[in-house]
Amino acid sequence: MVDRYASFDRLAFDRPAPHVLRVTINRPEKMNALDAEGHDQLERVWAAIDADPEARVSIITGAGKAFCAGGDFASMPIGGALDPNQEGARSFRSATNLVMGMVNASKPIVSAINGPAVGAGLAVALLADISIAAKQAKLIDGHVRIGVTAGDHAALIWPLLCGMAKAKYYLLTNETMTGEEAERNNLVSLAVDAADLQAKALEVAEKLASSAPTAVRMTKYVLNHWLRQQQAVFDLSAALEMINFQGAESRAAIKAVSEKSTPEFPDKTYF
Amino acid sequence: MVDRYASFDRLAFDRPAPHVLRVTINRPEKMNALDAEGHDQLERVWAAIDADPEARVSIITGAGKAFCAGGDFASMPIGGALDPNQEGARSFRSATNLVMGMVNASKPIVSAINGPAVGAGLAVALLADISIAAKQAKLIDGHVRIGVTAGDHAALIWPLLCGMAKAKYYLLTNETMTGEEAERNNLVSLAVDAADLQAKALEVAEKLASSAPTAVRMTKYVLNHWLRQQQAVFDLSAALEMINFQGAESRAAIKAVSEKSTPEFPDKTYF
Amino acid sequence: MVDRYASFDRLAFDRPAPHVLRVTINRPEKMNALDAEGHDQLERVWAAIDADPEARVSIITGAGKAFCAGGDFASMPIGGALDPNQEGARSFRSATNLVMGMVNASKPIVSAINGPAVGAGLAVALLADISIAAKQAKLIDGHVRIGVTAGDHAALIWPLLCGMAKAKYYLLTNETMTGEEAERNNLVSLAVDAADLQAKALEVAEKLASSAPTAVRMTKYVLNHWLRQQQAVFDLSAALEMINFQGAESRAAIKAVSEKSTPEFPDKTYF
Amino acid sequence: MVDRYASFDRLAFDRPAPHVLRVTINRPEKMNALDAEGHDQLERVWAAIDADPEARVSIITGAGKAFCAGGDFASMPIGGALDPNQEGARSFRSATNLVMGMVNASKPIVSAINGPAVGAGLAVALLADISIAAKQAKLIDGHVRIGVTAGDHAALIWPLLCGMAKAKYYLLTNETMTGEEAERNNLVSLAVDAADLQAKALEVAEKLASSAPTAVRMTKYVLNHWLRQQQAVFDLSAALEMINFQGAESRAAIKAVSEKSTPEFPDKTYF
Amino acid sequence: MVDRYASFDRLAFDRPAPHVLRVTINRPEKMNALDAEGHDQLERVWAAIDADPEARVSIITGAGKAFCAGGDFASMPIGGALDPNQEGARSFRSATNLVMGMVNASKPIVSAINGPAVGAGLAVALLADISIAAKQAKLIDGHVRIGVTAGDHAALIWPLLCGMAKAKYYLLTNETMTGEEAERNNLVSLAVDAADLQAKALEVAEKLASSAPTAVRMTKYVLNHWLRQQQAVFDLSAALEMINFQGAESRAAIKAVSEKSTPEFPDKTYF
Amino acid sequence: MVDRYASFDRLAFDRPAPHVLRVTINRPEKMNALDAEGHDQLERVWAAIDADPEARVSIITGAGKAFCAGGDFASMPIGGALDPNQEGARSFRSATNLVMGMVNASKPIVSAINGPAVGAGLAVALLADISIAAKQAKLIDGHVRIGVTAGDHAALIWPLLCGMAKAKYYLLTNETMTGEEAERNNLVSLAVDAADLQAKALEVAEKLASSAPTAVRMTKYVLNHWLRQQQAVFDLSAALEMINFQGAESRAAIKAVSEKSTPEFPDKTYF
Repeated sequence: MVDRYASFDRLAFDRPAPHVLRVTINRPEKMNALDAEGHDQLERVWAAIDADPEARVSIITGAGKAFCAGGDFASMPIGGALDPNQEGARSFRSATNLVMGMVNASKPIVSAINGPAVGAGLAVALLADISIAAKQAKLIDGHVRIGVTAGDHAALIWPLLCGMAKAKYYLLTNETMTGEEAERNNLVSLAVDAADLQAKALEVAEKLASSAPTAVRMTKYVLNHWLRQQQAVFDLSAALEMINFQGAESRAAIKAVSEKSTPEFPDKTYF
Repeated sequence: MVDRYASFDRLAFDRPAPHVLRVTINRPEKMNALDAEGHDQLERVWAAIDADPEARVSIITGAGKAFCAGGDFASMPIGGALDPNQEGARSFRSATNLVMGMVNASKPIVSAINGPAVGAGLAVALLADISIAAKQAKLIDGHVRIGVTAGDHAALIWPLLCGMAKAKYYLLTNETMTGEEAERNNLVSLAVDAADLQAKALEVAEKLASSAPTAVRMTKYVLNHWLRQQQAVFDLSAALEMINFQGAESRAAIKAVSEKSTPEFPDKTYF
Repeated sequence: MVDRYASFDRLAFDRPAPHVLRVTINRPEKMNALDAEGHDQLERVWAAIDADPEARVSIITGAGKAFCAGGDFASMPIGGALDPNQEGARSFRSATNLVMGMVNASKPIVSAINGPAVGAGLAVALLADISIAAKQAKLIDGHVRIGVTAGDHAALIWPLLCGMAKAKYYLLTNETMTGEEAERNNLVSLAVDAADLQAKALEVAEKLASSAPTAVRMTKYVLNHWLRQQQAVFDLSAALEMINFQGAESRAAIKAVSEKSTPEFPDKTYF
Repeated sequence: MVDRYASFDRLAFDRPAPHVLRVTINRPEKMNALDAEGHDQLERVWAAIDADPEARVSIITGAGKAFCAGGDFASMPIGGALDPNQEGARSFRSATNLVMGMVNASKPIVSAINGPAVGAGLAVALLADISIAAKQAKLIDGHVRIGVTAGDHAALIWPLLCGMAKAKYYLLTNETMTGEEAERNNLVSLAVDAADLQAKALEVAEKLASSAPTAVRMTKYVLNHWLRQQQAVFDLSAALEMINFQGAESRAAIKAVSEKSTPEFPDKTYF
Repeated sequence: MVDRYASFDRLAFDRPAPHVLRVTINRPEKMNALDAEGHDQLERVWAAIDADPEARVSIITGAGKAFCAGGDFASMPIGGALDPNQEGARSFRSATNLVMGMVNASKPIVSAINGPAVGAGLAVALLADISIAAKQAKLIDGHVRIGVTAGDHAALIWPLLCGMAKAKYYLLTNETMTGEEAERNNLVSLAVDAADLQAKALEVAEKLASSAPTAVRMTKYVLNHWLRQQQAVFDLSAALEMINFQGAESRAAIKAVSEKSTPEFPDKTYF
Repeated sequence: MVDRYASFDRLAFDRPAPHVLRVTINRPEKMNALDAEGHDQLERVWAAIDADPEARVSIITGAGKAFCAGGDFASMPIGGALDPNQEGARSFRSATNLVMGMVNASKPIVSAINGPAVGAGLAVALLADISIAAKQAKLIDGHVRIGVTAGDHAALIWPLLCGMAKAKYYLLTNETMTGEEAERNNLVSLAVDAADLQAKALEVAEKLASSAPTAVRMTKYVLNHWLRQQQAVFDLSAALEMINFQGAESRAAIKAVSEKSTPEFPDKTYF
């Protein structure tokens, strides 16, 4: 196992049952926030698992109290070394690789949402084929709060999870949804007490691991065509997010979040 | 404000908070039923709000006890001055203008569904980006009851709100759904006690008004591509409704509703 | 009535109210499991009902304690008289005829899910326009359990019923969902106490039967365009199921179900 | 053969080669114009051919000098015995049955377009899987000329034949296209000299009849999903056509065509 | 007419026949290149024409030797007064308003492509419902040449005009296509000798103007649903174009075009 | 270069111009027919090229007189070591990997179709972004001829190349189309004399290599969403092909092709 997953140092791996691989996002001191390298590893890991003959099912969870706090500010495409076109291209590819990497993975993925899941972290939580949340876990998309379009995964799948009315409410206001509410809204598959979460995720993963592998994977594959059909809409959300990151609105919003102050936005809007 | 909204006499306007415009359907003695002029104003008002630099968010609600009882019988395309082709064309455009006008409005819309919402009134309530219902408010599509295809908004969005099983049940039977049930079915964003409704709507609107405007609008815009993709299906529902209005079935049904009697329909059906 | 439905001997017919035809799957000693002939009759019956001038609405239910246990093992395309290409073609057509036959039927269908609904039985239950389940009725897709892709109806409609997260959970694990849970998840229209089921189904059917027939049928027709749009995805699920039935995985799974043992699958998977 | 096709008296049938059935629209004295009965037979014949074990391929052609002049004026839904809703429903079903009947037929259809093909006649010509036109044959959609939306088949398939620019030109102006031009525009499969038409159609039909039947039918089936995806757009065109037929514009246009005069239309348009 | 079109000073208007309005892009000394104001007028003019009771059809053409050279460099969103987010939002809206304004205009539009049509100018030429080109007129998309994604109209309609193979060839290489080749490729409706162009455009416009107005407009409306279905793809092309304009690649390409030199691009690409 | 492409022994590589990589299918003694290994290399090579920093554009061509004769009989999924489910899964993945690998490659691909292109070879030829054929080169899909559904690439793209009428003619009859005809039908981008083919392909490739790389790749990416939207239809064609390969019809057809005899098919067809 060392060799296969050696390049994934932001993630921890174990095999809690035959054919089950557990992946743990492993930066607990930062609520498992993703730096650029961590994001990249979450883009690549699903293809590595597909190539792993010992794994039939994977579990994705977070180390410590959080599931994943999303991208850290340092990894956001706010400017820097690259020019805006290159930064936009790189970030667009990075966002779509993470999302479509999970959609196109052959093997089923179970998420055990043990604590806060935000931004790209929420994308990973909800794009798992079976999502199991601790009842008190907090789910927040968080894009609008930092002044950018909800471009990570939401436009691909939320309308097919909790419906448009709930989707827009949570995506536009960035109100927190608990795991319990998420299950009630059909956003996640199951919600269980935090104490039972890892056991339940493992139970479900073992059930999948003991089922006919081709049938499981083809059932996933076919259902995901509903998502692939919305790839242009998702791509659009990601492209608009990259445009937003270049401007004053997102800078003001990020500053306000960092300083816990009230943001001020330019008077005029062109959209 | 007088000038900008001067031509909208079926609606009342106020600004309960910075950047928040509240629009009140204002014919309380008729449960805010829409005559042709009222319908026309609800088609046009969203573009006027998009052009209003003081407004970032709008709230739509009803005066008095009702949200909006829908089109009044006098405004229905049952025949009269125009020939059936022209009446069909006019009514088709009118129905689609109302619906697509809300879908294509840049700025987010919050509905405060304070009481009965029926027909075109329900369309306005549910096409708002965030829909907040009083728990006891009664929601009724009402088309089949008057003998016409559910052609106002339902085919555009209900399957993406509460799912096909609930959608068909309520659209085919025209059973009443309460605000509380609607929230439970994912048909609306939130349900609150009637006493808290306007405050909650304002709270949500203020939150949107203080968020990055471009990000909010683009997030709405992208999510609404799910609805734009169904425009041909929606248009078909509206066209079939206009065909229905020219015939004996809808006349019999409307008569029965008016007289609270049992309708009798032609023996033979051609569909 | 004798003549019109004479060729449907796996089904029983009665007319419990004017314009209402009730169809009962009638093999109670086998939990109404479908042999090839029974499946064929459920493919053909909807066109026969469309041609029946006395029927405006149909109810579909099961005799005895079950709704329908799905295809019996003898009817599955596991090999036999036909070569794999012909068996695949025949079974593909059979599966799609049943599903699209209900989708394309003009007249509305109410299902009264009185007990277990599995496989093709669940397809019939959930493709009814209005689905009413006894609260304790058990709903199981059951395909993955026998080692084949969920190819009967699920890929056509589940994401538009209960959302992707719940859909994948139940379709991949084949966990049982009760009628009560199904209503809570928006998978069925209504759940009622078993004692009230037939009366409720009849009440709903009578309401539809007394509504304007053209408006009812056109409303069904338009809403079902949401399903017709997914016909290629559904067809793909059926085609992959037929491929699976030719192989060792499904044989192992079916053997394990029959023997209540643990299946063993080939080591290597090619998907 | 007498029995199987006995009810199709507007059509003539022969079997010019093994497994090839030729259907000839047979009202040469009226340029094979379709009365209501003839239209109905063209709706039903494809299912009859699918059930005919001797036929693997069909050829559709016209008796005498024309292919098919389309619906005759007497069969148009301009009013009469039925009320407008019922007439609209009936005509909508009739138009969609003809078109989708050809799309959904299992067996391949070859059209031999021997002369003028207009309206519903052009629909039959172009919805054949392989369309072979005499170089001088005249192809005219003809809907706009009689004051109604091009609702027969054009919105389903023209953009996927000759592209939008050519489609709109011919559909909006009702200019005549010859078979030779049609082939050049990719609207038909082949154009040949009139003298060679029937031989070429037969040659192609024989080639199909000697190919693997399942592969031929599945290839047709899969490609036609491109058309099924546009069913809502096509349905909308048919519904709007039925609205148009109820009004003064189409009456004026039909009168002008009949009298070879210039039509006068109402001053105001509501679309 | 003065009042209705008074605010459109980049355009000239005349009425060459009853119900026909001719619009001439009127900056011949600059090959009718569009400054920001000219672009804005081409976004708004279609709604103004829809509201003009004297016009049933419009012709769009260019003054002098060119049809329209597209946006001038000064109007491109390369940076300046607005921040990149606002510039991106503004330019995205501007591009989509022009394109969807023509798609959603009720009344038919005929383009008379009298000379070079480039960029946004080509968009106007090809989004006309009927496009008539002088045989020698040069058609060039031109986006890739200035280092940006083909984001104006191409992704919306080219695959439905000349097919993907020709579309990609001309869009990726920016080779010139003549009007004659464009007609041969199905990219335009007709190609005629330059001397006959205006007469032919007028003849077609008069034919449309003398046809049933509702049928003409509804036929256009329905066919354009094929384009509306691709709105997310088109939007994505426009959003990516706006990202490109912020970077070094487009600056290098624009510089090279201006200086007729060879551009040098950054070594590394992130897409 | 040795290392990067060392594992691709069925292909030859050279760099005829800066940033241009030429890939030559290299089994001239067998008309470049693909054994299983050759097919696999054509699945994998596009990702290798995307990772090659020296390559901005690739050319794909054939060694000797043929472009590529497609899969050889030995590589077809007719049975053998694997069971039918596994063989079906493997072959389905193999077919979709080749096709979607070209669609999803970032960098543009130019095909130089120097001679016969058949089956999977034709897929490679036509899925190139720019396809340039020698005028006399013979293009044949060839699936129906060996008794299987046209499952390689045709259902994904032919209707968007040459339109449905031409697509069905060539796909159902497997008539040969020359390069010259293919260009006339919009199936390929260009047709040139055989002597000029490689020079023209190189000229086009150099033009692309000297254009802004991000703009080129994003333009390709966006246009290919038209193809991604049809992935379920394409997948269905591939799945049905795998079913066909297991049966007697394809065995009979393949035997007949090998022996140049007339195939005999089972009397009864189930589709």
